[in-house]
Amino acid sequence: MNTVVSGPGKTVTISLDKPTVIIGERINPSGKKKLAAALSQGDLELVRHEAEAQVKAGAEIIDVNVVTPGVNEVNMLPRAMEAILETVDIPLCLDFNDPKALEAALEKYPGKPIINSVTGEEKSLNMVLPLAGKYGAAVVGLTMDEGGIPKEAETRASIAAKIVQRAGEHGIPAEDVIIDCLALTLGADSNSAVITLKAINLVRTELGLNQTLGASNVSFGLPERGLINQMFLAAAISAGVTCPTLDPIKTRQAVLAMDLILGRDRFAQKFLKDFRARQAEG
Amino acid sequence: MNTVVSGPGKTVTISLDKPTVIIGERINPSGKKKLAAALSQGDLELVRHEAEAQVKAGAEIIDVNVVTPGVNEVNMLPRAMEAILETVDIPLCLDFNDPKALEAALEKYPGKPIINSVTGEEKSLNMVLPLAGKYGAAVVGLTMDEGGIPKEAETRASIAAKIVQRAGEHGIPAEDVIIDCLALTLGADSNSAVITLKAINLVRTELGLNQTLGASNVSFGLPERGLINQMFLAAAISAGVTCPTLDPIKTRQAVLAMDLILGRDRFAQKFLKDFRARQAEG
Repeated sequence: MNTVVSGPGKTVTISLDKPTVIIGERINPSGKKKLAAALSQGDLELVRHEAEAQVKAGAEIIDVNVVTPGVNEVNMLPRAMEAILETVDIPLCLDFNDPKALEAALEKYPGKPIINSVTGEEKSLNMVLPLAGKYGAAVVGLTMDEGGIPKEAETRASIAAKIVQRAGEHGIPAEDVIIDCLALTLGADSNSAVITLKAINLVRTELGLNQTLGASNVSFGLPERGLINQMFLAAAISAGVTCPTLDPIKTRQAVLAMDLILGRDRFAQKFLKDFRARQAEG
Repeated sequence: MNTVVSGPGKTVTISLDKPTVIIGERINPSGKKKLAAALSQGDLELVRHEAEAQVKAGAEIIDVNVVTPGVNEVNMLPRAMEAILETVDIPLCLDFNDPKALEAALEKYPGKPIINSVTGEEKSLNMVLPLAGKYGAAVVGLTMDEGGIPKEAETRASIAAKIVQRAGEHGIPAEDVIIDCLALTLGADSNSAVITLKAINLVRTELGLNQTLGASNVSFGLPERGLINQMFLAAAISAGVTCPTLDPIKTRQAVLAMDLILGRDRFAQKFLKDFRARQAEG
């Protein structure tokens, strides 16, 4: 299944048959004091810089999140979006807390973005899907509902199926639903990663959907986070994640290695090109 | 399926339900001048040292290979075996070129070793399986035959099935056949890893056998070998490899991370214990 999204200058196709698409996660003020401060002062220089740096590092889609205390999201989300699109012309993934902020951004978005996100909760389905349908956006579906994040992989897959079905009622085709099976920390439950991997496998084999994942939660509270995240990312891409949400500056090389391993990089061209570029930079 | 092997003092169970078992690969003179020289002088100090170092680093089985020019294998394999078993009391995996060397070692082996290896070739099946049957050893089955290493995952899996069937005719139960789906370098064929991973999946789902793999070949001739090997190992363990053959000094931490991710390390106990031990050593 192909998910096609676009920015003002570029169209990106996400598919199991193509190299992994990186959604750059760095424009998110949570835990980033400098970015939070800049946003609350209305200063968008850092946002522009992070967009550029992530694209240079290999991100094909940029996630935009401006949710932080002291920032008027309804005003800031469209502004940040426009600042990013002046700098890079690729598709964006729009995070929001207030649906009014989402709609303010969608109204001005020049292309087909990704909405991040809808859950299986009635309130969320009824709020987000009409907007996605109206503006022709793709949407990230989180496999959680009124009962929280299910412990069973099968239940997560069934929430994914429900989101697809409900999206269909709003004219959103299945290929425009990107599922996130949700990674929780292994520090709290040693089965959390294996449940996520099983859910990813089910969503791939039973629904055939494209999938994102924020893989770094998995190691929260543990030492050697880089190693754990990298091994988990390998297993997750192997299982069916096609557009992980991650920091390309830290993690792109691992993604390229995985594409090479999965036969998605003929003659190792992309891997070697990236290697040589990094060497040339010293 | 459980493969149970033993040395003079320890029994090891290999199973999909248990943590990954590391077969230490360092006692192999190919490409190691110092070890080759020591063996050709009949000096077994380095062999003892490598056995000890690998067990300390987390190997549960030690592979022994003394095949190198200038060494009388029939004489040396049993001697090296005995030197190792004086040092560590765990199961061994016996490599050989000359079947007489294998039998000389099997005659003196105190327990149940692994024979490394048999292929699907008639000559190999007829030479190795009678010895495995006679001495009650487990055996590594390589998925290759008179036609070489097949390009198709299905053909590799069918060679695995043939080895199991032929082993049965010699009284060797299926659980004592450990399959190696063989990793070739991505430098020569960008599909080589994906074929291996598919074969591993087939052998797990259709035959349920334990599997080893020498994962480091996959990156031969490419830069950033450590990263590629690590990502491939994650995917291979995820797909069904239960007892990889590798250098535990370099790679054990990655294996522990993978066991943690696959829910085989409750409360992250092994991972954290290893982390603290490495920290204590500085």
